[in-house]
This record gives sequence, structure tokens and C-alpha cells, in this order.
Amino acid sequence: MATNTPQPPAVVTFERLQAYIAMVFGKVGMPEPDAHKVAALMASADLQGSDGHGVIRLVPYTRRILAGGINLHPNMRTVHERPGSAVIDGDNGMGHLVVSRAVELAIEKARTTGVAWVGARFSNHAGPASLYARMPIEHDMIGLYFAVGNANHLPPWGGAEMLLSTNPIACGIPTLHEPPVVLDMATTVAAYGKVKAKAKAGEMMPEGWMIDRKGQPLLDPKRADEGFLLPIGAHKGYGLALIVGLLAGTLNGAAMGRDVIDFNKDIASTTNTGQSILVIDLRAFGDPAAFKARVDTIVRDLRNSERLEGVDRIWFPGEQSHLKRERYRAEGIPVSPGVVTDIAALARELGVEPLV
Amino acid sequence: MATNTPQPPAVVTFERLQAYIAMVFGKVGMPEPDAHKVAALMASADLQGSDGHGVIRLVPYTRRILAGGINLHPNMRTVHERPGSAVIDGDNGMGHLVVSRAVELAIEKARTTGVAWVGARFSNHAGPASLYARMPIEHDMIGLYFAVGNANHLPPWGGAEMLLSTNPIACGIPTLHEPPVVLDMATTVAAYGKVKAKAKAGEMMPEGWMIDRKGQPLLDPKRADEGFLLPIGAHKGYGLALIVGLLAGTLNGAAMGRDVIDFNKDIASTTNTGQSILVIDLRAFGDPAAFKARVDTIVRDLRNSERLEGVDRIWFPGEQSHLKRERYRAEGIPVSPGVVTDIAALARELGVEPLV
Repeated sequence: MATNTPQPPAVVTFERLQAYIAMVFGKVGMPEPDAHKVAALMASADLQGSDGHGVIRLVPYTRRILAGGINLHPNMRTVHERPGSAVIDGDNGMGHLVVSRAVELAIEKARTTGVAWVGARFSNHAGPASLYARMPIEHDMIGLYFAVGNANHLPPWGGAEMLLSTNPIACGIPTLHEPPVVLDMATTVAAYGKVKAKAKAGEMMPEGWMIDRKGQPLLDPKRADEGFLLPIGAHKGYGLALIVGLLAGTLNGAAMGRDVIDFNKDIASTTNTGQSILVIDLRAFGDPAAFKARVDTIVRDLRNSERLEGVDRIWFPGEQSHLKRERYRAEGIPVSPGVVTDIAALARELGVEPLV
Repeated sequence: MATNTPQPPAVVTFERLQAYIAMVFGKVGMPEPDAHKVAALMASADLQGSDGHGVIRLVPYTRRILAGGINLHPNMRTVHERPGSAVIDGDNGMGHLVVSRAVELAIEKARTTGVAWVGARFSNHAGPASLYARMPIEHDMIGLYFAVGNANHLPPWGGAEMLLSTNPIACGIPTLHEPPVVLDMATTVAAYGKVKAKAKAGEMMPEGWMIDRKGQPLLDPKRADEGFLLPIGAHKGYGLALIVGLLAGTLNGAAMGRDVIDFNKDIASTTNTGQSILVIDLRAFGDPAAFKARVDTIVRDLRNSERLEGVDRIWFPGEQSHLKRERYRAEGIPVSPGVVTDIAALARELGVEPLV
């Protein structure tokens, strides 16, 4: 549990974090290559500062595994396929594994067709969207990723019933010398993972993240159950969340709307989570190096453009995560005291060492 | 010019509006089938209430044609092609014609590959994004559309230099019995067309649409030149506008960032406008009827869900445009007095009858 006295975060290396996560998953029965792959992705989330989606999820993921809510030996298979599209049934495996498989297949297909779209059903929560949107970049491809969130915290615009989730969009775009452009955004003002991170850190939320059932600002993340998230741009964010849910959920035969179960409250039921990845091969649009040089020019134009008073620097999407990745790789990754304590309790139960 | 005394709008039928637009374009040399096609799309914009993108553009489009800023006899050709992707060079033709061609090609390709992405370069302003995102729907396909706006009105987040446009996203999703789900949104709080429509109507803008160079709210649309638009969700909308610009502009070899010319101020130069359409064939993902029935269920769940106090009805994206289309088809389409007056002046110059 988080305390009210601020404590400094623990600091661990990427390697330690990955090895520890893999060890815990191994202890609860996940096959070693899978545990290693999931752990690498979770530690990568923390490495880039996506602290709502990395090791903070170790305890809930493990509890779900122990409750039988995850299939540790899934028979993943392609249920629909065309030259440029497919749907993968993840058989309730770890979301990280299902989505990685979807991205790999889309990359392979895009080499021939120019673009490819692969959806997933019977997947699970897979961590930050940017992890998957970034995967095509090293192949000189663009990734565009859509996911259905794993708990409904968003009502339709004007509504008071939470039928939609934070359904994120992510996009990864290759560059030549600059860090890649990587957008990763919930269609709500704040992702629910950020609300959970605030609660864990014992901090209040800024106004605009959530409202209560009377429409009043809700600031205490521990009272998050009493209200709902706000969409970006009012009705526009509601529309985006709906579209993303239809493209990542409904199109793949995955849960969307009333079907979405709250994976924080129900740790045993199959979530039937849906995700979709679109991959665009730059080679199908001309010379990849020329494209990447043009993107470099644009992001430099943005960075060097005139600033509003009091603004020190103009960033582009993915730039701050990139710098965080470099810094945390050199200095270690901060893990909040609340997360450390929760993991220690789990470690005692499992009879394994604590993280720190 | 709009006057300060509110006048009732003129009301014209869809057929009259289309025929009139086609007649004017014919008068300035557009080949008849092209004039008919562009006019149908422009009148369709007004029919669905997209009044910033329909007949309001007749005068500026015609002025651009007269200034030599549009190629009325373009040699459109495919410059890159893969089984599931292509780039069309529109040879500076009317945007409506270039984008229609791109959508038609994407629909054809998606029948085989499951999904297809077709981009356009050397296109022009093409009216509301939803027109193109909706085209695949009757083929039991989903349309996802991205466009670079034709004037930069958006600075990067924290910036004061307008390097980005309102770069819209649109998505059309088939339904069974409900109206299709059609999202069409600028990545700014307001599209610039809406600012122009407010100016034309002699109305003030609500707070939150624009700020001036000091960061203060700008409410008078006639002073729009003195400020800039605000992105939705702060830095998120900036990120979306950038991504959309890279996908619709840079990827296709079209203008983006500093290359974008303000088509309101410069009516003679080639705009090199870029747009991209992604088409998803529902048949590649299972039974289209089953998908459409699931979408019906979701939008009905949204509509029938609990409402916040004071809210009469919950809408889904595209529903209000659908109702408007039905109403305007029955009752006629309102055209604002400012637009009527501007068209009358043009008509006198061209020696043709006025619209009303």
C-alpha cells in the first residue's frame, strides 16, 4: 500500500527488472521463453516511463494467472486470413504474446502487400500501445495500433453509464537521425493506468481527468470507482474511443461495449481482449530513406519553431520516452514504493525473493 | 459579405444545388462529368450539414480555377503500387476527383487483399473527410481516412508558429439497421471551415476554439488571422495532427508542415495536398452481417444508456448527419445569406444566373 509520506522510488536496472518479472512468471507456471518475452516487454514499458503498464502490472497479472484467468499454454491460431489481413485467436494467452504474434504476421504480410492489418481476439491486456506500434519501425515500416481497454471507464458523451474504455491509439513512424515519432494516447484525457499510478503514488489527480456522477471534478484517485474518465475533445474523444473499439474489438470478434469485463475486479474470467495492428511498408511508397529524411526535417522544424512565452522546449511525440529510455538505461529505472511493497507481499506468498 | 442583422438562410433542393454548382464549374471550363461528380460531392456535404465544406467553397474553388491553381484536365496516375497499396498522383486536379479515384482503387484492392491503403499526392481540398470514409460502406467495407488540411492554423504544443493544419480523421463503419457509424473530426477543437462559417454567419466563436498569440481566448472569427486553433486534448491533439499529416502528406510525397500553402491566401500555386484512405473488407474478418449486427447492438446500448442530468439524447458519430441528410432531402438545404451574396457576385462576373 502507498503511504502518505512520500518515499523515494527504488531504482533497478532493466536487466534486473526483466529477470525478476520472468522469474515470478516462471514460478507460477509460464513457459520460460514466454516469460522471458513478456518480461522484456513489461520492463521496456518501465524503461520508457510507461509506469502504468510495466512492473506495476506484475501483481495483477500474476493474480490472474493464479486464478486461472490466463491460459499459459495457448493454442494461438489464425482464424481468418487474406494476403493483407488476418485475425489471430489468442486462446486467452498473455496479451503481450498474442499481440507480438499479430505484429510479426502483419510485418511479414506487408512486405508483399504494402500494407497489412492483423487483429487479435481472445487476447489480454498487453501493456502500453507504443510497444507494438514501435515494432515495425526497425523494418522501415509504420505501425498503427488500436486496442480495447480492459475496463470500461468512459460513458458515451452525455451519458453516465461506462460502456467504453480508454481505447488507445498508437503510431510509430521511422526517422533517419531523430528518435522515431511514436504517439501513444488514450482517447480519454488520462489513461486509467495513470489514475492507478497516481493512487499507488499517493498523489491527487489534476482537474479534467475524471468527473463524478454529478459531473463534478473528481481529484482523489482512490475514489476513482465513484466517477468516470473524460474523453479528449469532448464528443470527439467519445467518437474516437467508439471507433477504436469497433476496429480493435468488434471487427476481430473481441469484447467491446457491454461485453468488456473489468479485469481489475474479475481476475478469473476470459477477457476476450481485442487489438489491431496496421503495418505500412515504406518501400511500397518510394524510397524509405527519403521518407525518413522528410520526417526528420518536419520534427526539427517543429522543435526549432517559435515558442509561447514560458515554454522551454517543443517536443514531438515519442521524444520524451526516447530520452527516458536512454536515461533509465544508464541510471536505472525508478519503481514506486507502493509497487515495491505490493510485489514484496506477492513474493512472500510465492516463496521467492523480493524485487529489492 | 455577412451583415450584422441576422437573415434567414435561403433554402434549395439537393438537385438544384448540385446542378447549380456543376453549371458554374462548367462555365469555367471543367469537363461535364467531372463538374457533375464534384458538384454531387459538394452538395452532399451541405446535405449532411457539413456547411463549412459544401457550396460555401464554390467561390474559392472557382477563383482558384480562374487563377490557374487547379488543373482541369489532369493526367492522374498511379506512381507506386503493391497488391494492397498505391499512391496516386492527382496532377493538381480537383481534390474530389483525386480522392474518389483513390477510394475506388482501395475498394478494388481490398476485395482481394482484405485491406488496402491508397494515398494521394498533388491532390487538392476535397471537402469533408466523411464523404470519403463513407464510400466503402455500401461495399460492406470500413473506410478510414486521413487528410492534410489546406492551411496551417495549429502550432505544435507549446509553440506559436503554425506548422500544422487541422488534419482530420474520418471513419465510416457499416451497420445493419442503424445509420452507419461515421466519425469525421478535425484534430483541432474546431475545424477552420467552422471558423469561416461563423465569420460568414456573423457569429462569435465559443471559447476554446482559438487563442491569440498571447494565449488569450479569441472569439471573433473575423480576427482569426491573429491567432491559432487549439488541438483536442492539448498535446494529444497536436500528436494526432502530426501523425495524420505524416500518414496523409509525407508518406505520399505530398505537402506537410512548412510546405503547406494557405489555399485561402494563395489561389494560384499548386497545393500538393495529400490524403490517404484505408479500406477494410468486412468479408476478410468473418460474416459481414454478423459484424454489422454487433455494431447495431453497441450503438443501441449507447443510445439507451443512462444519461447525465439535462441530457435529452445520446448520439453516436454520424447519427446527426444522417438525420440532417433525411431532413434536408425532404425540406431543402439551408444556404447562409453570406454564401448566397458571395455566389451572386461571382455569378454576375461569370454572366450566369444567381443560385437563388
